[in-house]
Amino acid sequence: MTYSEMARQLLASGHASEGDAVYLRAGGKEHSGILMPHHEFSHPDVIVIKLRSGYNIGVMVDDASELRVVSKAQDRPSRPRSPERQSGLPTVSFLGTGGTIASYVDYRTGAVHPALRAEELVATVPELSDICNMRSKVVFSIFSENMDVARWQELANAVADELSSGAEGVIIPHGTDTLGFTSAALSFMLGDLPRPVVLVGAQRSSDRPSSDSYGNLLSAARFCVNADAAEVFVLMHGETSDTCAHVHRGTKVRKMHSSRRDAFKSMNGSPVASLDLQGGLEMLSPCRSKGNFKVEPDTRMEPKVGMLHFYPGMSPEAVRRFAEGLRGMVIAGTGLGHVSRDMVGCLKDLVRKGMPVVMTTQCLEGRVNLNVYDTGRDLLSAGIVPGEDMLPETALVKLMWVLGRTDGPEEVRKTMIANLRGEISDRRGL
Amino acid sequence: MTYSEMARQLLASGHASEGDAVYLRAGGKEHSGILMPHHEFSHPDVIVIKLRSGYNIGVMVDDASELRVVSKAQDRPSRPRSPERQSGLPTVSFLGTGGTIASYVDYRTGAVHPALRAEELVATVPELSDICNMRSKVVFSIFSENMDVARWQELANAVADELSSGAEGVIIPHGTDTLGFTSAALSFMLGDLPRPVVLVGAQRSSDRPSSDSYGNLLSAARFCVNADAAEVFVLMHGETSDTCAHVHRGTKVRKMHSSRRDAFKSMNGSPVASLDLQGGLEMLSPCRSKGNFKVEPDTRMEPKVGMLHFYPGMSPEAVRRFAEGLRGMVIAGTGLGHVSRDMVGCLKDLVRKGMPVVMTTQCLEGRVNLNVYDTGRDLLSAGIVPGEDMLPETALVKLMWVLGRTDGPEEVRKTMIANLRGEISDRRGL
Repeated sequence: MTYSEMARQLLASGHASEGDAVYLRAGGKEHSGILMPHHEFSHPDVIVIKLRSGYNIGVMVDDASELRVVSKAQDRPSRPRSPERQSGLPTVSFLGTGGTIASYVDYRTGAVHPALRAEELVATVPELSDICNMRSKVVFSIFSENMDVARWQELANAVADELSSGAEGVIIPHGTDTLGFTSAALSFMLGDLPRPVVLVGAQRSSDRPSSDSYGNLLSAARFCVNADAAEVFVLMHGETSDTCAHVHRGTKVRKMHSSRRDAFKSMNGSPVASLDLQGGLEMLSPCRSKGNFKVEPDTRMEPKVGMLHFYPGMSPEAVRRFAEGLRGMVIAGTGLGHVSRDMVGCLKDLVRKGMPVVMTTQCLEGRVNLNVYDTGRDLLSAGIVPGEDMLPETALVKLMWVLGRTDGPEEVRKTMIANLRGEISDRRGL
Repeated sequence: MTYSEMARQLLASGHASEGDAVYLRAGGKEHSGILMPHHEFSHPDVIVIKLRSGYNIGVMVDDASELRVVSKAQDRPSRPRSPERQSGLPTVSFLGTGGTIASYVDYRTGAVHPALRAEELVATVPELSDICNMRSKVVFSIFSENMDVARWQELANAVADELSSGAEGVIIPHGTDTLGFTSAALSFMLGDLPRPVVLVGAQRSSDRPSSDSYGNLLSAARFCVNADAAEVFVLMHGETSDTCAHVHRGTKVRKMHSSRRDAFKSMNGSPVASLDLQGGLEMLSPCRSKGNFKVEPDTRMEPKVGMLHFYPGMSPEAVRRFAEGLRGMVIAGTGLGHVSRDMVGCLKDLVRKGMPVVMTTQCLEGRVNLNVYDTGRDLLSAGIVPGEDMLPETALVKLMWVLGRTDGPEEVRKTMIANLRGEISDRRGL
């Protein structure tokens, strides 16, 4: 969608171009900021202004609205300046991977680029430089649906390097599609952490009104500096409104909506912390504290692990073919962890041939329990490993990691049912 | 788990056996009802009493508790009597399929049997006979993880028979594991309905304290009789407490917890109705009204349809092998409906070979949108069908049904993106 005729005339009357600093009066309210490009998802009568705070506001204009240019874009420097180093502030590292959050708007051209360098992040979120000194590095720049084991390994090593050179925390802007898989992979690969690693995404790019990239990046920096927390976390919007961000444990988080800003949910437990946009921090559940030791990542992983969600009529032959060449399999069964009778036979065969098979539930919440019904008991006696209350996705990543270091069936089982990184909750209350 | 020594002594002191009508005083409260068998999930100090209303209450006893027998089980008839037909009440048909809800406790032996006959259902929920005359038939009795296309067809025909012989509604007690798949299958197979078809499950069997089978069966009968609604619905507990039941549209409902009684949720929309346990009915969203016409089921289905959830590192070769011999495929992609670059190539090949491939989102909530990012546009131009905001499970069942009547790619696409049975929501608000 483009501007309406009315909005276009308003912009023309003020001789305003994208990137100009403008004053806009509409609906009885006044706004000052940078005129942003019209976004294809916005209403034709909406003009987007980037406020001084970095927040993008969409303003619905009408015939009575007034707009004038305060300063032209070309009178300002074309690239943001590098933030100056301030003594006394902790250093936070930003590791770029690509994705919606890392987009930076060139105010001269209106084009959207990946925001990769520290100065571009600061241009997006000016307050960052009041919270920390920023170090940044682009590890890679991809759509997150293309993440894979090799990139997880590269990223884990990059995180370890940053922590070893004294970062107070590492923030990883990441596409939201596979954010939960990456956070689980880093949780297992990095082991005990001296400082927090915070993956952060955005559901609306930074050129859109009410983009969440601003609030999420800001809250991530505050969390690294102010919270006594040292695990792998995911930080995203906590509610539909702009009131707070939630911090989730990296092994317990899942994207539960394709487009909403509060898409990420802690499954089978509460978020670890909540931050309001004024900087207030509330810890909601216990987590590991910061410490002083060297992180020793173990990035070995077996990529040949599969995951299948059971459904009525699933063909055991198709599953057998799918499993050829794989070294392990995670099943998302129904309810407490069930599959049909002929699928029980199929999974039995896989286990007999030496393949570890882990059962999780496609309900996503709740725990598998293979002791209640006959089907479950059959699966247990066939050697299927119960995945407790692990998310199927987390069980998949964990099985990759476990098979990277052993293929002894007993050790695989023991490690899969042990709680290593908060991926399995205590039985009480579930 | 069995009774504690203390609970056992209390029962022995009163010479009480399972099935006896007892009086129990504990914690300052008095209870009268039938002594139920001890349930393996109950606390060792808990004695379960079936109240006159049919509700099972778990009572925590202590040293000060008192228990005495009011009448011995053997002095009562061993089988419940058949309910008498009352003129003026509408007839509701119960079609048994198996599952937790349909369990009936024999008060003489303490054993749990499937409750299949009308008189057994009435023994479980005495109020049913005040609401309707009951007709009942056992279609089959299986664990619901063993449901398949052939059984859906059998069930759809049985429903049509009941409606054709004048039932005011059809209630289908069904195992919860695949309840959502069956409700979607019946929605498509049955077409326009003159009267409601209500699938109902229980997460806790009727011998357990706070079993939900009582409230769910009762509410289902009230809904059939009192609501002007004629679609395929799922009725389950609405909240963790015992306050209300929710009625969900059959194509929009998913089991979202492995064990909680309020496990079932309407996805991408609100429930259709809410009922409180006193019989109060509130319609929450519009649905089709009752009518007077003959139902004409179309049960043709192609069972050879597969469903795969994408994950990082998914092997295109494994997917190709899985797809051999299948006639259609549903993918649950990440976010707006994405897969990795090499999986795009793999899906392209499948489409080129004539296989319909439908994209849904593993987020479960929200809509797929293949127009936003490059990956989506590549999928669209490859001929992948966008599944809008259909649940992956509903898209699977729908594709089976669509392929049962056509294999013309254009007709498959057109039917998949059309809203037939409420499976696709309006774009507004999502």
